[in-house]
Amino acid sequence: MADYKVPVRDMRFVLNEVLNIDEHFQKLGLEEVDAELVNTFIDEGAKFSENELAPLNRSGDEEGCGFNNGEVTTPKGFKEAYSKYVEGGWPAMGGSEAFGGQGMPGVAGIAISEMTGTANWSWSMYPGLSHGAIATIEEHGTEQQQNTYLPPLISGEWTGTMCLTESHCGSDLGLLKSKAEPNADGSYSISGTKIFISAGEHDMASNIIHIVLARLPGAPEGTKGISLFIVPKFNVSDDGTLGERNGVTCGSIEHKMGIKASATCVMNFDGAKGYLIGPENRGLNCMFTFMNFARIGTAIQGVAHAEMGFQGGLSYAKDRLAMRALSGPKNANGPADPIIVHPDVRRMLLTAKAFAEGGRLMVYWASMLGDMVKLGKTEEERKDADELMAFITPIAKAFLTEAGLEAANHGVQIYGGHGFIREWGMEQNVRDARISTLYEGTTGIQSLDLLGRKVLQTQGAALRKFTKIMHNFCETHADDEAMKPFVEPLVKLNKEWGDMTMAIGMKAMQNPENVGAASVDYLMYSGYVTMGYLWALMAKTAQDKLAAGEGDEAFYKAKISTANFYFKRLLPRTASHKLCLEGGLECLMELDEAHFAF
Amino acid sequence: MADYKVPVRDMRFVLNEVLNIDEHFQKLGLEEVDAELVNTFIDEGAKFSENELAPLNRSGDEEGCGFNNGEVTTPKGFKEAYSKYVEGGWPAMGGSEAFGGQGMPGVAGIAISEMTGTANWSWSMYPGLSHGAIATIEEHGTEQQQNTYLPPLISGEWTGTMCLTESHCGSDLGLLKSKAEPNADGSYSISGTKIFISAGEHDMASNIIHIVLARLPGAPEGTKGISLFIVPKFNVSDDGTLGERNGVTCGSIEHKMGIKASATCVMNFDGAKGYLIGPENRGLNCMFTFMNFARIGTAIQGVAHAEMGFQGGLSYAKDRLAMRALSGPKNANGPADPIIVHPDVRRMLLTAKAFAEGGRLMVYWASMLGDMVKLGKTEEERKDADELMAFITPIAKAFLTEAGLEAANHGVQIYGGHGFIREWGMEQNVRDARISTLYEGTTGIQSLDLLGRKVLQTQGAALRKFTKIMHNFCETHADDEAMKPFVEPLVKLNKEWGDMTMAIGMKAMQNPENVGAASVDYLMYSGYVTMGYLWALMAKTAQDKLAAGEGDEAFYKAKISTANFYFKRLLPRTASHKLCLEGGLECLMELDEAHFAF
Repeated sequence: MADYKVPVRDMRFVLNEVLNIDEHFQKLGLEEVDAELVNTFIDEGAKFSENELAPLNRSGDEEGCGFNNGEVTTPKGFKEAYSKYVEGGWPAMGGSEAFGGQGMPGVAGIAISEMTGTANWSWSMYPGLSHGAIATIEEHGTEQQQNTYLPPLISGEWTGTMCLTESHCGSDLGLLKSKAEPNADGSYSISGTKIFISAGEHDMASNIIHIVLARLPGAPEGTKGISLFIVPKFNVSDDGTLGERNGVTCGSIEHKMGIKASATCVMNFDGAKGYLIGPENRGLNCMFTFMNFARIGTAIQGVAHAEMGFQGGLSYAKDRLAMRALSGPKNANGPADPIIVHPDVRRMLLTAKAFAEGGRLMVYWASMLGDMVKLGKTEEERKDADELMAFITPIAKAFLTEAGLEAANHGVQIYGGHGFIREWGMEQNVRDARISTLYEGTTGIQSLDLLGRKVLQTQGAALRKFTKIMHNFCETHADDEAMKPFVEPLVKLNKEWGDMTMAIGMKAMQNPENVGAASVDYLMYSGYVTMGYLWALMAKTAQDKLAAGEGDEAFYKAKISTANFYFKRLLPRTASHKLCLEGGLECLMELDEAHFAF
Repeated sequence: MADYKVPVRDMRFVLNEVLNIDEHFQKLGLEEVDAELVNTFIDEGAKFSENELAPLNRSGDEEGCGFNNGEVTTPKGFKEAYSKYVEGGWPAMGGSEAFGGQGMPGVAGIAISEMTGTANWSWSMYPGLSHGAIATIEEHGTEQQQNTYLPPLISGEWTGTMCLTESHCGSDLGLLKSKAEPNADGSYSISGTKIFISAGEHDMASNIIHIVLARLPGAPEGTKGISLFIVPKFNVSDDGTLGERNGVTCGSIEHKMGIKASATCVMNFDGAKGYLIGPENRGLNCMFTFMNFARIGTAIQGVAHAEMGFQGGLSYAKDRLAMRALSGPKNANGPADPIIVHPDVRRMLLTAKAFAEGGRLMVYWASMLGDMVKLGKTEEERKDADELMAFITPIAKAFLTEAGLEAANHGVQIYGGHGFIREWGMEQNVRDARISTLYEGTTGIQSLDLLGRKVLQTQGAALRKFTKIMHNFCETHADDEAMKPFVEPLVKLNKEWGDMTMAIGMKAMQNPENVGAASVDYLMYSGYVTMGYLWALMAKTAQDKLAAGEGDEAFYKAKISTANFYFKRLLPRTASHKLCLEGGLECLMELDEAHFAF
């Protein structure tokens, strides 16, 4: 496979030309950041990603993590790359300035997250997981907790984890059993076993700060009896120096299909010293403030694997010779034509490309909304952004990871039998992508969140907020001849989406199981339409640039071609999702559990 | 994951009740075989598959094959299982009686192929590959070649391979470079390197017989200059004893995403002694007689992985507790409901089930057609079956392997995060399934074969042969109220299929690239419709049994429920495939090769 090349031009197109981040920064009153600074980040980040991280991607997969008596060793080179990352100041980009961070808004670093993740998803999870711990402590920690934990977490000296899942519960956290017993000194003794803890133990940082969900004595059952605790690997003295080892140990690491260089740990808490963070029994609510960010973080993974499927597929499709074009030789002097001449190979390449580029805009836009939620000047702006982000998050997480998995599989398919061979790297891309539709809430869970909580529970308000944006876009460009191929289908889909939602809502009033029966097809439908709007937006931007005679003509024309492909050959997938969900509930429920197999 | 349980009841339903194999055997004048004998094979085969092969599936994946200085060692237990397989007489089932076989028609052994393959696909490839060598020698070998090679191949004492692919050519065999120089004694010296040779070297059999594609001196370029050779690992003396080692060696084995226990070999032919089989320069034509059989063999793999996705998913969905049903608790005394109560989990389970059972019928039916091609009493019967089989083969191979991969992914998804962990076995099912859409002709190649060669080159005759069968079925049951939910959509699709084909044909006359632009969506559309017909057939059979008050009511009702699910929630996918292919060629071709990435 070709080496990963950061799509710098495309990232700038999205940030500067489509989203206009300079305007965004001004709106937020951020004077210390502008597009030029972000461009510098991108250039530096691209060097780091291409030179330090990408070369460790396949070797990390082959070597995996080591486990010996509670110690985890990361693959060769991982530790050194992490040191360089810390030295470069990268972990501190988004951190609060009060604690040594650079205070950058999310969208200023989103391209960095994408490129480090695409270069080496497993590696990127170690610093990535810290964000959850940092966000939780920033939002809910006491002043003392913030002073103690934030500076070394923000600098990257320490890393963090989120310890939620137990072996019997992942999606349904209400079932969790870990316990927190109060100590005389105001701390708690945490006991229980957590599984699937990414970066739970490793050799890259001098301390690891776990954010742990557990139950206080006498806490209500279910989700309303869960509290949040800070549990450091090494206890921290008042002066910030590391004390003795706490009672939290890694019991084993999982053997997985992919992301093998990311240590997925079983963490045993055996009377470990922990500190309550946030109010008692409100741990799950505190988590929710963080969850949208984590989900957008996982949505990036969809973009990452789509981009790798595309880049890998493209380099092979240009090189590999097989068959002649059906319309006659295109490489008459060679023994056969490069396979990129074949329409079906192009269909696979363009699918991966359209998902990667459309997904990039979706994620960057969501990140901008995240900034607005945090930093918007007015309550109305913040609320507005929050509602829109709540709607877009499950779509971005589930649709983009499903799209990324599909694109990664196209990457393999373009290589034929060679795609199945490890040395080419394309099969690793599929294996690494496979986790993305599972963790941080499966596609099924995201779909219930979208259709149940976000859409139906708001009586459609969240959906209307988005369809109104689409509607305005379509109105504005209704008379633009060049935009017709994009505007006309969107107008139709916009109405259909609303009608379909209404119909599901009616059925759900008769029987709420109708929500579950429709949910995944509904989410996929929503994803295709949302991405359709974003592709229309990119086409419009490109058309404007061409009309103005600005920039690289070929680049903008390629953007319009890809939009065209998306509308003609991917967007029509909405039709089947609609028909399948209209297939309804009864055919799913009529079979008795005992009669699935004989 | 649950242990594999051979779906014996379902296999009998397909063979005896839907396909009526007794009538088939009578029609072919085969007196020595009947349904009862096939039932005995199934019972014995189920014991062997469940007890000997299934337990080696995960251990084989973990251990993989060893390679040391040209020698390949198969994982622990593989050799012993193969010995038992040979002792049980299984390899000889389909072999010609003149050479020690039992002369059974293909459909008598198809369930055995399915169950050994589902229990352990990697293992099943070692005996499976022999079939190609046997068929080639039976069809094209001289009497002496048949006497020398067939008895030990048929008994399973030796195994065979097909050596086609070279590193620079897989789909496009016209590019191959291996050479055959004539020797004074009438034999040939074969030189060249073949890759991706399954079972090319291993420790299970005393000799390996390679069927090798190579070029004679002065042979025409391209596909018309390829001849076929028999190259044994050990030379064979006239009395059948093994002589010295031939100049063919295994250079290395591939490191793959899946089917890790199947040795995928690089085979170096270094002046190896070979024997021409079939006419000079007609090697590829000789291969074609075998290819339909090999492709049906791969279609079974789709059924196998769908079945494992279904069985594994079902056992977990019944056990795992998470959330409450949206309509209220179904397991009020437990902490949560088993996830099989959730409609979306059922959607995934039923998708895997519908693909497995529909695919089973498709493959078994194709195998019956294969028998008719070989053994039909009249020229007309044979020709008729041959045309139908030529049409159905690319659909079965490509559609069922794509469906199997989807179902295997549903199996993982039902397990949530646990699906990604190796010990549960569901991720192996995906990794093993991934090869099936690549080898024996990728989905793209099968789609060109279907739309280009089979449909358009016959001016639609092959399609009409099949749609006529559907049409007759729909006519016969037009007034049957209970069949309306199946007959009505099929009538509509039958017409739409023809119209759509006509439209593509018209566009292809203007520009043949339109074939490639439509092909994969066309194949998938065809697959869904074909499987729709087969599900209608099963529903009808079940309805008749229920009306007659015969057999297990719950079994037949489950069959009708699954048919119902298929028609409501899978068949509508045809809509998007139609719309996407109508999206056409231009949006695939307009982007210049140089402008895919910037």
